[in-house]
Amino acid sequence: MASSSLAKKKIAVVGSGNWGSAIACHIGDKVRQLNGQYHEQILMWCKEEILDDGRKLTEVINQQHENIKYLPDRKIPENIIAIPDLDIAVKDADIIIFVIPHQYVKNVCEQLKNNIKKDAFALTLIKGFYVDEQTKELTFVSQIIKNTLNIPCASMMGANIANEVAKKIFCEATVGCRDDKHSEIIRQLIDTPVFRLRFFPDIEIIEMLGGLKNIVSMLAGFAEGLDTGFNTRAAVILRLGFVEMINFCRLYKKESTPDIYLQSCGIADLIASSLGGRNYRGAKTMVQTKDSLAYIEKKDFNGQSLQGPSTAKEVYRYLHAQNLLDRFPLFRDTHLICESIIKPHVFLDNLGNHPEFH
Amino acid sequence: MASSSLAKKKIAVVGSGNWGSAIACHIGDKVRQLNGQYHEQILMWCKEEILDDGRKLTEVINQQHENIKYLPDRKIPENIIAIPDLDIAVKDADIIIFVIPHQYVKNVCEQLKNNIKKDAFALTLIKGFYVDEQTKELTFVSQIIKNTLNIPCASMMGANIANEVAKKIFCEATVGCRDDKHSEIIRQLIDTPVFRLRFFPDIEIIEMLGGLKNIVSMLAGFAEGLDTGFNTRAAVILRLGFVEMINFCRLYKKESTPDIYLQSCGIADLIASSLGGRNYRGAKTMVQTKDSLAYIEKKDFNGQSLQGPSTAKEVYRYLHAQNLLDRFPLFRDTHLICESIIKPHVFLDNLGNHPEFH
Repeated sequence: MASSSLAKKKIAVVGSGNWGSAIACHIGDKVRQLNGQYHEQILMWCKEEILDDGRKLTEVINQQHENIKYLPDRKIPENIIAIPDLDIAVKDADIIIFVIPHQYVKNVCEQLKNNIKKDAFALTLIKGFYVDEQTKELTFVSQIIKNTLNIPCASMMGANIANEVAKKIFCEATVGCRDDKHSEIIRQLIDTPVFRLRFFPDIEIIEMLGGLKNIVSMLAGFAEGLDTGFNTRAAVILRLGFVEMINFCRLYKKESTPDIYLQSCGIADLIASSLGGRNYRGAKTMVQTKDSLAYIEKKDFNGQSLQGPSTAKEVYRYLHAQNLLDRFPLFRDTHLICESIIKPHVFLDNLGNHPEFH
Repeated sequence: MASSSLAKKKIAVVGSGNWGSAIACHIGDKVRQLNGQYHEQILMWCKEEILDDGRKLTEVINQQHENIKYLPDRKIPENIIAIPDLDIAVKDADIIIFVIPHQYVKNVCEQLKNNIKKDAFALTLIKGFYVDEQTKELTFVSQIIKNTLNIPCASMMGANIANEVAKKIFCEATVGCRDDKHSEIIRQLIDTPVFRLRFFPDIEIIEMLGGLKNIVSMLAGFAEGLDTGFNTRAAVILRLGFVEMINFCRLYKKESTPDIYLQSCGIADLIASSLGGRNYRGAKTMVQTKDSLAYIEKKDFNGQSLQGPSTAKEVYRYLHAQNLLDRFPLFRDTHLICESIIKPHVFLDNLGNHPEFH
C-alpha cells in the first residue's frame, strides 16, 4: 500500500473564494469515491485573511470546515486543507487548479515558477483574457500559466453559479483540453451526474467566451435600466451580442467545431449572466441611479471590480488597433458607455444599423 | 398615372388577431412611405365577431381604426380595411400574408384555392408544423399553403411580441424564402430600422423552430414551478433544449447554414418565450397548482389552446415512429408530463443522462 500510495496523484487548488471553495468541495467529495487513484488530501491555497472576530480564515476552514466568508453554509469536506503558503500548497501537486481573480495570475505564476513538479498540468477556471499593451495581441490566462510555469494548461468554464454547485443543483461546464490523458483525469475528478462536463480542444475560445459574455451582460443591464421592451432585452441584445462574441472569437482563431458556442461556456453562460449576473446588475444600477461604476462596485459588490468594464476596455483597444470597431458596435458602445463618452440609450439607437443587417 | 396604378401590387393579410393586426399596421405604415410601388389599401380578412356592445369587429376596425379586441390602444392606419369575407379580401392580392391560428390553415386554403391570382405568392407567419397521421411525415404550414393554392410560400418567424412591434420597439425577424424577387418584396414591405429582417432559404426549418421552442418554453416553466436553481432553468434547460431543437430540425433536413439557429427565429425566440411566454407561464402554473392544462387554458388564456402541448404530442409521435425517443429526452418528457404519464420532476432527474453527455 505504501508504494502504491506514492504513485497517487496530488491535487492543489489555487484560490479559495466563492467558486474556488465550491469546486474544492466538489472535487473533495468526488476524490473520496475514487478508491485511491488520487491523494484524498487536497491542498487549497487560501490567501490569509483576519476575520472580523480576529480568527484567521485558514484556521476557520480547517477547524470549522466551512469557508464562512466566501461560501457560508456549505460544509467543506475534511480532506480539503487550507494552506496560507502558496509554495507549500502547490509544490507536490500533479494537478494544479487555478481559481483566483485574474489580476493576480501573473504574480502567482511568477512566484510558483521554480517550485512545481515538472510533469504537473494545470486547469484554469479563471474567466477572461488580456490584450498585450505593446503588441495588442490577445493573451489568455491559460497561456500565462503555460508559458510561465512551462506546463500544459486546460480551461473549464460554464454557467456555474458557485452556490448552486455547492448545493449540488444540476449544472454543466465546458472543458478545453488538447491532451486526452488530462481530459480523462479532469473527468474523473469533476464529472458527476449533477455536474456534467463536455470536452473540446478550444482552450482559448472557452476562456474568451467567459470574458466576452460579461460585456453582453452589461448591455442587458443597460437595456433593463432604460426600460426597453422585453423582446429587445431578452432576444435582440442577447442574440446580437452572441453574434459579436462568436465573430470576435473568430478573429482570434477558427473554432474546432461550431458547436463550441452552443455549450455551457457559450450560450448558457451568456443567458445566465445576462439575466441575473453581477455585471448585469451593476449595469442596470448604473443607468438607473447614474452613479459611477466605482461607487456601485463599492456599494453593491463589496468593493470587488466588475469584470465587464475592464473586458470591454481590452476588447475596445484590440478592435481599435485592428480598425474593426464598426463590426462590433455593441462591444464598442459598452466601453463608451462605461467611460461616460456616450449616453446609454445610444447603443439602442444603433441596434437597427448593426452589421448583421447589412 | 392610371395605367401605372394598375401595375401596383396588392397586399392581403389573412387574419386579424393580435399578431395579424400588429403586422398589418406595420405594413400599412410602411406601404405609405414607398411612393406608390404598392397599392396603399391593404385588405385584412377579419373573421367577424359581435362584440359585447353589439358592434361588429370589422366595423369597429374600419370606423374607429382600432382592433379593440385583439390589439387595443394601437391606432390602425386608415389604409387597412377589415373585410369579413375571405374571398373578397384575397382574390386580387399579389402578396398574401397568412397569420391565423394553425388549426384553420387547411380550411382557409381549401376555401381560397380557386379564387386567387395565379402569380400571387404567400408569406406565412404561422408557427409550428404537423406530423401526418398516416405517413408520420412532417408537414409544414408553408407546404399546405403551397400545395393547396399552388403558389410559392415564404415564412417569417422570430422573437416578435405583437404589442412591442405595435409600439415600434426594436425587434427582428427571420424570413425563409427561396426566391430573390419575393425576398426583395418582403424586405420592401416589412424591413424598417426598428423591425429588421434577415433572409435564409430554410423556409421549413424556420417554421419548425417556431413550433419546437414552445416545447422548451414549457420545460422552463416546469423547472420554475419546481423551484429549481436559476442555473438549471436559464442555462441548462434552454441549452439542452436548444440542442434538441437543432437535432430535431436536422432529422428533417440539413440547414443551408448553421447560422440559422442563431437567428431571431432560433435562439432569440427561444429565450424570449422561455422567460415570459404563454407556454412558459402555463407550464409553471400546471406544476404549481396541479390544475389540468384544459382548466389553465380556460382560466388564464381566455380558452385559447397553448401550442406547446400539441407540438410536444406531434413530436412525440414522430420520434416514436422513428424509434428516436431516447435521443430527445426533453421533448419526450414534456409530452409525458403534459399527459400526466410522468411527474414533472422526472425530467430534471433525467438531465444528467442526456445524450449530449455520452
